[in-house]
Amino acid sequence: MSNKNFGFGTQIRKSPYFDSTVKWGATGFSVYNHMYIPRDFGSPEQNFWNLIEKAILCDVAVERQVEITGPDAFKFTQILTPRDLSKLAVGQCKYVLITNNEGGILNDPVLLRLAENHFWLSLADSDVLLWAQGVAVNSGLNVQIKEPDVSPLQLQGPTSGEIMVKLFGEGIRDLKYYWLREYDLNGIPLVVSRTGWSSELGYEIYLRDGSRGNELYEKIMEAGKEYGLKPGHTSTIRRIEGGMLSYHADADINTNPFELGFDRLVSLDTDINFIGKKALKKIKQDGITRKQVGIEINCDPLSGPNTTFWPITKNDNVVGKISSAVYSPRLKKNIALAMMDINHSEIGSDFKVNTNNGVFDCKIVEKPFYDPKKKIASS
Amino acid sequence: MSNKNFGFGTQIRKSPYFDSTVKWGATGFSVYNHMYIPRDFGSPEQNFWNLIEKAILCDVAVERQVEITGPDAFKFTQILTPRDLSKLAVGQCKYVLITNNEGGILNDPVLLRLAENHFWLSLADSDVLLWAQGVAVNSGLNVQIKEPDVSPLQLQGPTSGEIMVKLFGEGIRDLKYYWLREYDLNGIPLVVSRTGWSSELGYEIYLRDGSRGNELYEKIMEAGKEYGLKPGHTSTIRRIEGGMLSYHADADINTNPFELGFDRLVSLDTDINFIGKKALKKIKQDGITRKQVGIEINCDPLSGPNTTFWPITKNDNVVGKISSAVYSPRLKKNIALAMMDINHSEIGSDFKVNTNNGVFDCKIVEKPFYDPKKKIASS
Repeated sequence: MSNKNFGFGTQIRKSPYFDSTVKWGATGFSVYNHMYIPRDFGSPEQNFWNLIEKAILCDVAVERQVEITGPDAFKFTQILTPRDLSKLAVGQCKYVLITNNEGGILNDPVLLRLAENHFWLSLADSDVLLWAQGVAVNSGLNVQIKEPDVSPLQLQGPTSGEIMVKLFGEGIRDLKYYWLREYDLNGIPLVVSRTGWSSELGYEIYLRDGSRGNELYEKIMEAGKEYGLKPGHTSTIRRIEGGMLSYHADADINTNPFELGFDRLVSLDTDINFIGKKALKKIKQDGITRKQVGIEINCDPLSGPNTTFWPITKNDNVVGKISSAVYSPRLKKNIALAMMDINHSEIGSDFKVNTNNGVFDCKIVEKPFYDPKKKIASS
Repeated sequence: MSNKNFGFGTQIRKSPYFDSTVKWGATGFSVYNHMYIPRDFGSPEQNFWNLIEKAILCDVAVERQVEITGPDAFKFTQILTPRDLSKLAVGQCKYVLITNNEGGILNDPVLLRLAENHFWLSLADSDVLLWAQGVAVNSGLNVQIKEPDVSPLQLQGPTSGEIMVKLFGEGIRDLKYYWLREYDLNGIPLVVSRTGWSSELGYEIYLRDGSRGNELYEKIMEAGKEYGLKPGHTSTIRRIEGGMLSYHADADINTNPFELGFDRLVSLDTDINFIGKKALKKIKQDGITRKQVGIEINCDPLSGPNTTFWPITKNDNVVGKISSAVYSPRLKKNIALAMMDINHSEIGSDFKVNTNNGVFDCKIVEKPFYDPKKKIASS
């Protein structure tokens, strides 16, 4: 793969960190929100150990931001999500779901409140920019909605705190889980939040000037050298251990929040108004027909994540599907997220799963698979 | 690349034709609308010759459909596009632009009218499903909007007509350019339209049952054997020769229709109502500041398409950018689409262009570069 000629044209964008990630050893890229994202630096398992033992720097510029500003920005943002935002302070972040009129999930971004009427939705893989602009058309609300020049990095892992202190000074130690702060790093404009997609201690660093991507990447790698920082990518192993979702894989437009156990992200009993409220009330009342669960698969270590949905059967009847599976070298188990028929979703139940390499036994277990209270990331 | 394990997970979907395309020699895939699309069968130049001399079969399942139905479907669909749909007959197709409230282009799909109130938008690469559902929320119109189980193939090239006759009988010869018909091929439910993305004679075949993709692909390849049909992929060479757009490359949310010379797709002088009308009227009145042009680059044959936007300069000032460039082995020229400052957009003007391999002379020429009246495709 050549840095200069990677890709089939200009239809898929390159991140502001692209050159640096290639220089630091990226060997495989996927596509997310119309951009390339590095997903392989040679060994996904080594990347996992790097993450949980020291720290990794991940190019997640693909987490595009939808910026909502204007006098009605707060009111409009609340309409977009079932989560109650009334207590969201300026400087705070929340994990939210974006639902359509039928209660289906369109995205699961982190919402950042930068000012009273200044919000970013830091997106998973779908064009919520189009959704939000579409909703705004006839809303009668005064808002501006655009994709700003913002490109995040994730610095994640146990030594990430020390690296952040070296970069931003002692003050950063005060930054609480799911809070944000604006910084200027030698003239590079940034927002920093204590969030991530690893269930480890970690930070997201939102670059606000796309022309300075490689410069920022190199600066962080340099600062992290003495703390064992490695170039890396979001870890499928760690995020499945942590029970974190990958949109399109573990949830999509036909998934509702209750199927994922996300009742806490849906505020039905207040008088706030949001898209999908009526549908979600009905779903809640009628009860769900499917439920996401954790699964252990009893076979030799999987060589990589599943790339198709694997059917789960009971007495030859399909009763669910594996959405994301991977081998955890720490837990020494094949772990997975699955969407199951509600009548076959009890912990301890066992099934067969049809993988690409044969049919194996599997059973439902508690999830998250590791650190269920998220103490590592939040403390 | 292994059929079984291709990809980083289930986050990007595989087409119903995936197994067949791998079997028939696909060696490289890109991602489009959250799905893999084959973009390389070994030699893009050979693929071009296959297309213009005989015929190729292309997996374009990534052209996801947005289906609009319900009593207000016609009215709603008209709101989505600046093109006048009042003369769009049932069974007819139109190339349309989808614009936002600022007149920016969100997509350039083919619109199919399957029944009085039954439409498909056959998409380029963006989530217009979310846009349309968002617009519908407060529209007061009674419509259902969803992504149906529909996966198109493109059969394109001079012998495609004969292959279609073999598959569907003599009656298909009547199917006019930009018209559609429903078919059943040995029980496989299909829609067929005389459209494509090649500027050659060609058809799109929309499979309405995703479980039968490989079966359909094999059936068409078998029928096409005696007519020189080859497995292939959409040809960057041919579409640039034809001046056809690739969304995100040659146009995006910050591009307006007039910059592309698409005045005929914007109906400002009728009383129809559509999103962006006010903004587009103002743009038309004020005049555009940029314009898309055809460019010839005076250098050795490019080894492949540009993968970054190449700046065009006049006296060291940037006055435009190349969006898509490729070497045409038929024209024996490097041809490109570029977006230029309106003051530097006259045919015959010359400039410098900064490619990855150095700075070269270039000049503005007429586009399309080949068959400007689209006689080949439409006759």
